[in-house]
This record gives sequence, structure tokens and C-alpha cells, in this order.
Amino acid sequence: MTSVALFGVILAGGSGTRFWPLSRSQYPKQVLRLFGSESMLQDTISRLLPRIPLSRLAVVTNQAQADIIQLDLYRRGWHDIKLWFEPQGRNTAAAVGLAAMLMGAEAGADIMAVFPADHFIQDQEGLLKALDRGAALAQEGFLVTFGITPTRPDTGYGYIKVGQPLGHPEQGFQAQKFVEKPGLAQATAMLQEGGYYWNSGMFMFRRDILLDAMARHLPELYAGLAELRHNPKASLEEIYQKIPSISLDHGIMEKAANVAVVPVEVGWSDVGTWGALYELLPKDGRGNVKVGRALDLHSRNSLIFASDRLVGTIGLQDTIVVDTPDATLVCHRDRVQEVKDLVAELTRGNLVESLEHLTVERPWGHYTVLNSGPGYQVKRIVVNPGKRLSLQLHRRRAEHWVVVQGTARVTIGREIKDVAADESVFIPLETPHRLENPGPEPLWIIEVQTGSYLGEDDIERLDDDFGRAPVNHKLSHH
Amino acid sequence: MTSVALFGVILAGGSGTRFWPLSRSQYPKQVLRLFGSESMLQDTISRLLPRIPLSRLAVVTNQAQADIIQLDLYRRGWHDIKLWFEPQGRNTAAAVGLAAMLMGAEAGADIMAVFPADHFIQDQEGLLKALDRGAALAQEGFLVTFGITPTRPDTGYGYIKVGQPLGHPEQGFQAQKFVEKPGLAQATAMLQEGGYYWNSGMFMFRRDILLDAMARHLPELYAGLAELRHNPKASLEEIYQKIPSISLDHGIMEKAANVAVVPVEVGWSDVGTWGALYELLPKDGRGNVKVGRALDLHSRNSLIFASDRLVGTIGLQDTIVVDTPDATLVCHRDRVQEVKDLVAELTRGNLVESLEHLTVERPWGHYTVLNSGPGYQVKRIVVNPGKRLSLQLHRRRAEHWVVVQGTARVTIGREIKDVAADESVFIPLETPHRLENPGPEPLWIIEVQTGSYLGEDDIERLDDDFGRAPVNHKLSHH
Repeated sequence: MTSVALFGVILAGGSGTRFWPLSRSQYPKQVLRLFGSESMLQDTISRLLPRIPLSRLAVVTNQAQADIIQLDLYRRGWHDIKLWFEPQGRNTAAAVGLAAMLMGAEAGADIMAVFPADHFIQDQEGLLKALDRGAALAQEGFLVTFGITPTRPDTGYGYIKVGQPLGHPEQGFQAQKFVEKPGLAQATAMLQEGGYYWNSGMFMFRRDILLDAMARHLPELYAGLAELRHNPKASLEEIYQKIPSISLDHGIMEKAANVAVVPVEVGWSDVGTWGALYELLPKDGRGNVKVGRALDLHSRNSLIFASDRLVGTIGLQDTIVVDTPDATLVCHRDRVQEVKDLVAELTRGNLVESLEHLTVERPWGHYTVLNSGPGYQVKRIVVNPGKRLSLQLHRRRAEHWVVVQGTARVTIGREIKDVAADESVFIPLETPHRLENPGPEPLWIIEVQTGSYLGEDDIERLDDDFGRAPVNHKLSHH
Repeated sequence: MTSVALFGVILAGGSGTRFWPLSRSQYPKQVLRLFGSESMLQDTISRLLPRIPLSRLAVVTNQAQADIIQLDLYRRGWHDIKLWFEPQGRNTAAAVGLAAMLMGAEAGADIMAVFPADHFIQDQEGLLKALDRGAALAQEGFLVTFGITPTRPDTGYGYIKVGQPLGHPEQGFQAQKFVEKPGLAQATAMLQEGGYYWNSGMFMFRRDILLDAMARHLPELYAGLAELRHNPKASLEEIYQKIPSISLDHGIMEKAANVAVVPVEVGWSDVGTWGALYELLPKDGRGNVKVGRALDLHSRNSLIFASDRLVGTIGLQDTIVVDTPDATLVCHRDRVQEVKDLVAELTRGNLVESLEHLTVERPWGHYTVLNSGPGYQVKRIVVNPGKRLSLQLHRRRAEHWVVVQGTARVTIGREIKDVAADESVFIPLETPHRLENPGPEPLWIIEVQTGSYLGEDDIERLDDDFGRAPVNHKLSHH
């Protein structure tokens, strides 16, 4: 146990294209519940709480995913966690630098511990012990990286070769050499030679040491971020336009002399693909993982990830099937790396299936697009108890609301009335209106929109409990 | 060309479980549009029209599929085709026997030609010429079966060995031996020996000759069907309870002495599985067949049958992917025979996905179930121009209708009013109501049902343009 107080930084800016169609650009991997009821992000934070209280934790993500990341934290009641939004992804050196620069005095501790938001770790106790070892070395002035003891000649990870032991008692090793993702022969040779670890992407360092190293090895990045701290008029958008995009490993760790490796054996995986997830999940006697409404005959070594829709499979081998309400993936297990290429094609084609799900989560509940056609759209809206949507109006669409469960408190113009199940109301266009759930149970509404334009950006917010922008022409709000 | 007038009988009673999830028990293979804009049934009839007019065609199907088969014919304007509904499937001997017994004098011809409704035939001219040869032999008193010249040692078909040539000029051969679906070795040997043909399931015979043969070889079946003809009080249901279920091949053709085989080379396939369909459809350079919103990377020799939903595939080999709005099948091409086993499991589980699609066709248009949950159901209803639903009432559900396209003429109680797009009406429970499209374009309605019970069988029809039952507790009507 160390008595050093830590400040935790969670890097949650990943786009998660590799878990399409379960992940979308506005519903990234870090908020997926792949291993139970907690999201990857929630898991990451839960693991740290015995050592780092909420008030000394920060999450760095990007503005496009701001809503969903915030929701994921608020859902656990974690309102105290500091949130920083990057205008665009600039890789890990910028994200870590931003945190180091902005945490300022409020952190209450000088040692930063950095964790990706979307990795799997089985052994929490082991991780916490490693943090103690890391903290001791960070205290001595080392830039600490955590090295995973390799269990196979994996070609998907970077490796770090270690040298001299460090610390009294021994806490880790001097880092000797970073090796980029190797070929199989090289990976096998490293495993035989010994003294190599997988580069986990988890770090610890004193804030001043990190900033010194950044000033030396990435002076442009340092200068940009320092301006943010010292010039109250500095714009994050403008600074992010000009700072370099580089990883903390490439930009600093590989160049600095004072780098230490703390080995950890904690059942770690970066869960980089559907194939990696398949490896981690419990299998049946035929080597299959089945989730949701999956009915299989005679398949082997396959992952069948269904939802409420029915998926029937017959005689598959080494196949990944992932079904969601609006899109399905069927992929050979040897080709899971190419899911990102498929998503790139969707993005090029500007297809909504790369952007978001049919069900979209909101601070007040969620909605699901049930159907749309020329001049209309049908949604199911679920409002959580005690919550209400913004007071809003639409210029180009009217809305019919049919209450199917609960009681709605509805504002239309100057009138406020309660609408019970089986009843309906009509919201003419250009009329200010608000939907609220005053009751103790979720409120379910079927909304039929009609009009010449039905985009989510036809909204003017006159009042909002969640502090959202009055007009938003970029993100899809409700 | 023969001058003999023919009577055509189309056997359309197949359940089509092998094309799940595109086929359902209430949407069988014969109404699927697998090869273009015509259904298999429509194709079957179109091919025959140059020889057999609509007024001398009959379709035999079963009562459970009555609606969809009728719709499929009416959609082409084929109201003149005679329709016979069996209370339950009793194999081909009963279906053909029923037609032979009931066609009576109205057929206007004594030669019956029998065709399955769900086979593929490329060469229509070739088929028509074969019909002429078959008619000549049937006229001479032969029970004619059409034999497909085999192109490979297929183990999925029965074979017929032929003997003496028949007819002047030669029209076919005496049938010598029927062989059940053989093993590969036997199939190969038959191909080498020559003189064998695939048993196509198409037949021609004089009605009196067929009935004589039936009386002799299947006396129970003959007696049952004869009662139907001669006793005006006979019940089809009761008779079908007791008659034997046997194929025409087994029951008569294999036993009779006067059987002739007319060889045909017409690009025939019984399209028995997704694999057989794959063989018939045009492929891209990698051997893939892609239909609908399918996006593929690097797959080979696969069939990807998508709908409006997006299907992404990567690196598949010999795989069948079939996606529908509520269910997806992923099946290795070597295991397509087992699709029926999967459907059997669905049927055992009483799952709606084995019964019907989310979109259900009706004489007046169609509806689609968009969503359902506790106490509510949302449908999109499309009413064709000039059509109307029955005047009906529901005991346990209320309905909200929002018109999203066109104008609805709505009867509620004693009131009749026109409801324009953007407007809505409420139908309280126990209130007689009717939905009509008086306009020239399709009418689109979003219907939100609320109530304690939402089954399709909560309906009392007070008046119906399509002669449907006042109350129906078995079939799902609207």
C-alpha cells in the first residue's frame, strides 16, 4: 500500500469502429456492456475506486461523444467526475497532456494514473497492487508504463524490453526498448528470450515530470496546451487545430530516459476486436458464445450476438454474427480486423448505421425510431420518472403523441395538462411544447411526426433541465 | 402442337419451411419472388397460359394459406382460376385426386396436367412442346410423368428408368422402374448407364384413367373423394381426416403398368433449398449472389439476401445469409437441408417468426407491426386506392389512427368523416368502425392500439367487401 494520493485520468475518446454494429460513432465501445451490466467505462472506474475517489478522477473524451459518455457516468450517479471534451481526437499524448495541464491545483495530488476506458481486466486486486508499485516509482521521478506479462506470441500488441530492476524493494524495471507490433517470428523469439512485456497503454507519472518530458520531446504540443492554461482567451478548438497528433508512447515514452516498466498479471485484454471478445467470453461445449435470441444447430467456435430479433445459425465455423435492430454483421473470425474497413465504407456512404442506433439515449430517458417514410416518422419515447424534455418548438413538423403507459404532463403553448394512457394530444408546428413524466414509473409515448422536414436539428430549445444548446444543427438532440 | 384441350392443376400446398426466414408458414415459398417480379406460383401459371387458359386452370392449396394464395392470384387479375382448399395437407395423391374428382364437367377437357407451384423452369417453349408430347401419350391412355434429363449425379431427386419408346412419332418411353433418392455411388452409376431421368413431379393423364388407377391402387382415397362428389352433405374436413397421405408417385405411378415418361430439357430445378437457389442466380466475380442492402468484403461463393436492413459481411465462404425485418438466418451451404429442422424448433417453441412476417398482406393492402409492448401495439397500415377494411369492432382494444399520407374516410359509430394527412382519430373500444381509402393514391395510417388484449382475433366483422368470416379465432385477419 502506498500513501500517495493519486489523480486518475480515463482516456475515453475511442471511436470503437471495431465493434460495429454494436458500437456506433455516437455509441462507442467504452459505453458497451460486453461483460455484464456495467459498461467498459464504468468497469474501468469501478476498478479504481478503492484507490482513487470520484473527486480525483477525470474522463477525457471528444465533443461528439460528450452526451453518451456523460450519460454513462450519470447513470451510476458519478456526477463528481471531471469531464474534459476534446474538439477532435489528437491521440493519447494530447489527451494526457490536456489532463496534466488542466487538472491544476484541484487535483490535490501530483501523481497521475492514466487508463484507457475500454480495456478488460479480470484481477482488480492485482491491478491495485500494481498501482501501488507504480506510484512508488512515479514518486521517484520515473515515467511508469505497465507491462503485461505475455502469454502467447501475439502480433497485435507492442512490446517493451526491460533492463535493470528498479526500486527498494523491487517495484519494476528500467525500460530498455520499445518494439512496434511484431511479426509472428519476432514475437515468438521475444517470448523465448524473455524480459519482454506487452505495452498496455496504462501509465503513471508525476505531473511535473510528465510536463517536463512533454516540453522536451513534444515542444509544439506543450506550447499549445500551456497557452490553454495561461491565456484565458485561448480557444480549445483553435489550439487543437494546430497541435500534433501522436501517441504518448511514440511521442514521449520511447524517447525519455527515465521510463520504468511495472509488470502486471491481471487477466488483461484490450478487447480490440470481436475476435478478442470471443476469446474472453464463456463458451458452450462446441466453443460457441451465444447472446440474445440465438438459435443454433451444429455451429462451432462461433460468436452469435443477437438482440431481440431472432437469429438462426446452422453449421457455422469460426464465424462472428452480430445482430442489432437495424444492421447485421457476419464475419469470419480471421477477418475481424476488417470490420473497421466496413465501417469506413459506411461512413463514406454517409449511412446512419455508422452513426447511431435506432434507440438513442438521452438525459431524460431514450427514444427509438420505429419507422419513417415520406413526410412522417414514428418514435417510441420513454421518459424516466421525474424527468422532462426541454421546452421546445419545431418549425417544420407537427407531432401526435399517444400515451401508452404512465401519465404525461404536457405543455402546449400556454396550457399545461395531464394526459393519461390511451389518450393523445396534437402539437401543431411552431408551438412551444414540453413532455414531462411527473409519475413514479417510466412514461411511454408513441410519437407520430408529420411534416416537410423531420431532422433532429429542427428544434429550438426555450428551456432545458440539462443545459443543452438552444439550437443545435450538428448533434441530434431531442 | 396438339389440339387436345387441357385442364391444368397447380399444386400449391407446400409449406416452404426450407426458405425460412423469407418464407413463413403463412407466406410460403410459392408466393416468394425469388427470380424477379413474379412469384413462383405466378411464374408457373404464366408459363402455361399459351396452352391452358385461366378458365381451365385450378390451384389446390390448403386452408391455412388460402388468403395469401388468393391474393397472389388476384394481384395478377386472375380471378377466374378455380381455387380448392384442402383442410390439411394429405400429399399429392389426395390433392390430384381432389382435382380429378371435383373438376367434373366444368373442366371442358378430359386431360389433366399437374404442376407443382414452386419449381423453376427456364425454357418455357421447351415445356410447352413437352406438354404436347405428353398430351398425345395421355390421350392413348398412359399416366405420363415428365422426366428431367439428369446433368449430374444428384442425390436429392428420385430417378425413373425408362424402357420401350412409345408413340408414333416417338413421344416418350415406357417407365420401367422408379428409384428413390439414391446415394452418390448409385446416382453416378445410373448416370453412366443412361436411360434414367429425374422425377420432376409434373404429370399428365386422362381424368378417367387416373381415377381408375386410383380406385385400383388407392381404394380408400378413391372412396373418400368419391363420397365428396356424390354426397352433397359430405364434409371435406371429415373426409380429409380419414383418407391416406401418400404421394402420387408412391401411391399410383410406381404401381401402375401404363406409365410413360416424357423427357424434358428445360432448365428445371425444384429450388428445394437456399443452396439450389444460389445455384440458379447470377453471381459476381467472386461467386457471390447479393440482394438488397448487402455490403461485402472478400466473401466467396456466398448468397447474401438482405432487405431494407443493412447486412455487412466479411470473408465468408460458402455461406448463406438471409435477413428479414424480424429474423436472420446464417447457414453453411452444406447444411441448407437443415433449415427445416430450425423451423421445426421455432414451431415447437410457438414463435411467431415461423408463422408470418411483420408485414402481412391483405385483400385491401397490407400492414406492418412496427412495435409492441405491454398494453400497446403500433402498426403501419397501407390501404390501396378504392379499398376498405371490414366494418368491425374490438371488445378489448381502442385504436388511435394518425393519417400520414392520403385521406382516410373513417366510419366511427354512426359518423362518417374524411380525415386528412396530419390529422388523427380515436376509436373507442366496442365502437363499430371502418377505414376506407376513397382517393387515387395509397393511404398510409399509423395505428396505435391500446388495451388489455391486442390479438388479431379480437375482431367482429359487421360487413366485409372480401367475404371474410364475421369472427375468426384461428387466422389472423384485420
